[in-house]
Amino acid sequence: MDEKKGRGSIKLKEPVYILNSASIVGKKEGEGPLGLLFDMVGEDDLFGCETWEEAESNLQKDAVYMAMEKAGVKPEDISFIFAGDLLGQSIATSFGISCYQIPLLGVYGACSTCGESLTLGAMSIAGGFADKVVCVTSSHFASAEKEFRYPLEYGNQRPLSATWTVTGSGAFVLAREREKQARAVITGLTVGKIVDYGLKDSMNMGACMAPSAASTLERHFIDYESQPEDYDKIITGDLGSVGQTVLIDLMREKGYDISQVHMDCGIEIFDADSQDTHAGGSGCGCSAVTLSAFILKQLEENNWKKVLFMPTGALLSKTSFNEGKSVPGIAHALVLEHV
Amino acid sequence: MDEKKGRGSIKLKEPVYILNSASIVGKKEGEGPLGLLFDMVGEDDLFGCETWEEAESNLQKDAVYMAMEKAGVKPEDISFIFAGDLLGQSIATSFGISCYQIPLLGVYGACSTCGESLTLGAMSIAGGFADKVVCVTSSHFASAEKEFRYPLEYGNQRPLSATWTVTGSGAFVLAREREKQARAVITGLTVGKIVDYGLKDSMNMGACMAPSAASTLERHFIDYESQPEDYDKIITGDLGSVGQTVLIDLMREKGYDISQVHMDCGIEIFDADSQDTHAGGSGCGCSAVTLSAFILKQLEENNWKKVLFMPTGALLSKTSFNEGKSVPGIAHALVLEHV
Repeated sequence: MDEKKGRGSIKLKEPVYILNSASIVGKKEGEGPLGLLFDMVGEDDLFGCETWEEAESNLQKDAVYMAMEKAGVKPEDISFIFAGDLLGQSIATSFGISCYQIPLLGVYGACSTCGESLTLGAMSIAGGFADKVVCVTSSHFASAEKEFRYPLEYGNQRPLSATWTVTGSGAFVLAREREKQARAVITGLTVGKIVDYGLKDSMNMGACMAPSAASTLERHFIDYESQPEDYDKIITGDLGSVGQTVLIDLMREKGYDISQVHMDCGIEIFDADSQDTHAGGSGCGCSAVTLSAFILKQLEENNWKKVLFMPTGALLSKTSFNEGKSVPGIAHALVLEHV
Repeated sequence: MDEKKGRGSIKLKEPVYILNSASIVGKKEGEGPLGLLFDMVGEDDLFGCETWEEAESNLQKDAVYMAMEKAGVKPEDISFIFAGDLLGQSIATSFGISCYQIPLLGVYGACSTCGESLTLGAMSIAGGFADKVVCVTSSHFASAEKEFRYPLEYGNQRPLSATWTVTGSGAFVLAREREKQARAVITGLTVGKIVDYGLKDSMNMGACMAPSAASTLERHFIDYESQPEDYDKIITGDLGSVGQTVLIDLMREKGYDISQVHMDCGIEIFDADSQDTHAGGSGCGCSAVTLSAFILKQLEENNWKKVLFMPTGALLSKTSFNEGKSVPGIAHALVLEHV
């Protein structure tokens, strides 16, 4: 790799605090290994709404409300909201968060959106343009299947390499000042590039995204002159079990052994044996709710001092898939530390 | 309106330069009133590609190439690219700009995306995170009709309130330093909020978006303690003739007369009488190419000293439309000045 050092990586001179956060998930996620850690678990995945899309909008709305409530802030304290989701034209966001009347900067990075929204949120604060911002993303199993594969009613079968889109939303309140306490602190960023190995299998997104994770990770190590051992965990968003193997292999080829410190939110969120989720969980919501419920908890409790949080996204649409295009990936990394 | 002053508005301490830019459009746009000003006009709207989506990707690719070429910079000089489009999951961007291998922050703001990408690009430079960035957006008549209404092959009819999606892409190189010369300078930003008056007519997007333009404009005037007369032009993205009337009326109700200074890119780009485009042009590409080819030229030539550039977006998808949802709007404003 012939990378110009420092391009796309930012070491924040003044760290940005994750003041508080919230996670809301669906029934299946509530039954998984992290079930007890989420702030709220829905009884059924319509969350009292009439459509899957409306349900996903409500997830964002409630996650933002809860995160602000836990952080002790009101919508008028928030300068910007950085938000996005997987649905075409980000409609979960458009119909979910409009009630708060916070200036919106919509983002799209497929399942890496949680990383992108936190990146831009941190930049807006560190750059001096805001004191507090909110970052939120969501995904929903049923709206995503309809958007990318087939409506649930078709009862299509899924190969073992397929992942299961997480129903959930994670929201984060970022701030310049620490205030009483904060859950963690963002100290560095590495923005991802589009990486396309030409893979075309939308039922094996982990393999499609692993090269982008490897690219961002290598660039991060070079820019920060760091090694895998410098992090308690290196956490990808939703590579799943297939993608994890590919990433570890790719990194080994680049001279890094991450096998001891790698963790994937998609692998953690479901029990592969009992929950029939095949390669693991996926979706913007997967990394967002795992960050809020599990990763920040470990940093808070000082079980981990420093982690690299790197959500991964597969940049396809049903149109690009139907037109025979490949599935490029992107991954944005953030250094999160114990306060 | 009970707006907390300053929230969402940013006065840049150090202005950000628009070093150079490029515009590429389709055949119909080339035949319009601004036709001679565009950098490149396609002979047919497939631009040598096999699908409309691929054609749109190519528009972004070529616009970015040309903007960098005109600015005398290479991809490795660019820290970030802020890019987006109207297609589901922003595939015009994903397949258009990957070749440059510039760290990507994907944005979505419907037809306001040009404003959003310039806003975030300016913030990344003014915040000290980049020396140079590229901002690019696109739209394509045929891919947009397929995405939002009907495939062209259906030959559906369009009411007079409908707009015509512009086939085109505009790319901009922003920089901290002025270097030899710059086309204009960004001195201020007002980030938009989602505004939803409950309108549901996707064939009258101008009326759907006008309330969001009025909201951002009023907030801008309050935050900047400015008046319509302080700007040589107040320029919306793609309200078209119907939306223009609504915006002027709404602003009058708020106590501002913008009728003398208002201009809309959608009205300028086509000749309504001879080009059968009904209410005017629309799409992310509309404001982007008009900014690059026409507005920046006026600022460069000192015909205008200061303008407010405010692309407008309609936050719908075909799913939200089919589920009976309204069409909320958003508008992001930038103060652009003669260098």
